[in-house]
Amino acid sequence: MTHDWKAIDAAVRVEPGKKSKLRARDCIGADLFPEREAAEEALKECAKAIDELQDRLWAERSRALLVILQGIDTSGKDGTVRGVFNKCGPLGVNVTAFGKPSEDELAHDYLWRVHMAVPKKGMIGVFNRSHYEDVLVVKVRGLAPAEAIEQRYAQINAFEKHLSENGVTLLKFMLHISKEEQRERLQARLDEPESNWKFNPSDLEDRKLWDEYQAAYETLLDRCSTAHAPWRVVPADKKWRRNAIIAAIVHGALEEMAPAYPRVDWRPSDFKVE
Amino acid sequence: MTHDWKAIDAAVRVEPGKKSKLRARDCIGADLFPEREAAEEALKECAKAIDELQDRLWAERSRALLVILQGIDTSGKDGTVRGVFNKCGPLGVNVTAFGKPSEDELAHDYLWRVHMAVPKKGMIGVFNRSHYEDVLVVKVRGLAPAEAIEQRYAQINAFEKHLSENGVTLLKFMLHISKEEQRERLQARLDEPESNWKFNPSDLEDRKLWDEYQAAYETLLDRCSTAHAPWRVVPADKKWRRNAIIAAIVHGALEEMAPAYPRVDWRPSDFKVE
Repeated sequence: MTHDWKAIDAAVRVEPGKKSKLRARDCIGADLFPEREAAEEALKECAKAIDELQDRLWAERSRALLVILQGIDTSGKDGTVRGVFNKCGPLGVNVTAFGKPSEDELAHDYLWRVHMAVPKKGMIGVFNRSHYEDVLVVKVRGLAPAEAIEQRYAQINAFEKHLSENGVTLLKFMLHISKEEQRERLQARLDEPESNWKFNPSDLEDRKLWDEYQAAYETLLDRCSTAHAPWRVVPADKKWRRNAIIAAIVHGALEEMAPAYPRVDWRPSDFKVE
Repeated sequence: MTHDWKAIDAAVRVEPGKKSKLRARDCIGADLFPEREAAEEALKECAKAIDELQDRLWAERSRALLVILQGIDTSGKDGTVRGVFNKCGPLGVNVTAFGKPSEDELAHDYLWRVHMAVPKKGMIGVFNRSHYEDVLVVKVRGLAPAEAIEQRYAQINAFEKHLSENGVTLLKFMLHISKEEQRERLQARLDEPESNWKFNPSDLEDRKLWDEYQAAYETLLDRCSTAHAPWRVVPADKKWRRNAIIAAIVHGALEEMAPAYPRVDWRPSDFKVE
């Protein structure tokens, strides 16, 4: 690998205990992978390495990786899954998209459906949205009492600590796009007939609440970037750079986990295939 | 596409109501994709087309595709998933591997866990093994009473008919390898240290029951290849040919489903992204 993933990670990570200063973070990230060609090369290398490491993770069957993707509409959550995880494929990666909760889900606490979707040992799980919606849309639209929402940050931290202490490594990425970039992407959904179905008039309602959403993101970044599960704010206006950054961090984290093929407790020469 | 998927399909399909004649079917399939290079080209084209069609399937959100992969140990079920569905990626494809049932699963009827894993509308689901294990290993090893197993063929046909009448298209593939090919593949797991973990001494026990397994397969092919969910017996000694055949049939079936991007009931020009 030609890139320094630790430096990239340091640039996008929200240091636990420090303010995230979301508004001061740019959406371009020109210093990280300045050249598109090199970024695409790095993505390719990392995606291949992630695939190989996942095979070892599966062989080991003792730990899991959970990648959480959060971001406003059009921020590129689906595109990230394709770009970073298609090489790994559906055999090693499970994606769970969290939409509006069902009646049954609402009949439980908000972490219930999330816990059920945690990847099993050996797998990489990707959350397309997550329990953080319960301090985002729920907060901005007032779908739960303010004091209940206020308690959730600590509850989420406790839940994630529990997971990390039980073999699940968490990587949380906020895909950070600018208001202008969102305008262009929403407009493209209107302009391209084959993309019309992706456009939801309610997206415009959410867009009017841009500042409220950014404030809610800032609060969760400030309060839920922990030592066991820090947040990364990824400049996401450029799709190719977003993918390269996330792939580099996922790859680096998997390398640190260092999954290994298990040693067998028998001698291969003891067996003969007749 | 340069290949004729209908001809390929006809060659591997078990005609409903006819005997499968499993023992007469070869594991090479030299007539189907005689040239490796052309097979790999076809696989690439089909995988890309499957990905595009799955996007429409998702946009439509009214039907699902269920691909069932069955085959003895080392027959290449995982490899098929990677070869045919990695282009589509984990966003559009869910894989469910059915292993030994858990206590909770055994506390229900054998189709209970299978029904829960049926892909939701818009998705492609892949079963790595399936309810057919309940007339394979269960039969060969006598894990259920013979008269209960005898009833299962009709139960499975009814279940699959129900699914097909409710928007799920089923494609069932038996990966057909020769006894000699299995020997080589098992031996390779012993010879390559990094593959040792894949070898399970019990695989040799199953291998000793080769004829019993083949007979059980023949019975289920004879009795469960139906108009709504026919079986395909895929020559699988050559991995590249196996992948090309399956991709061609999955692609052809998806084209026949002809999923289309939904038309929206509003005019794009009525909206402006501020």
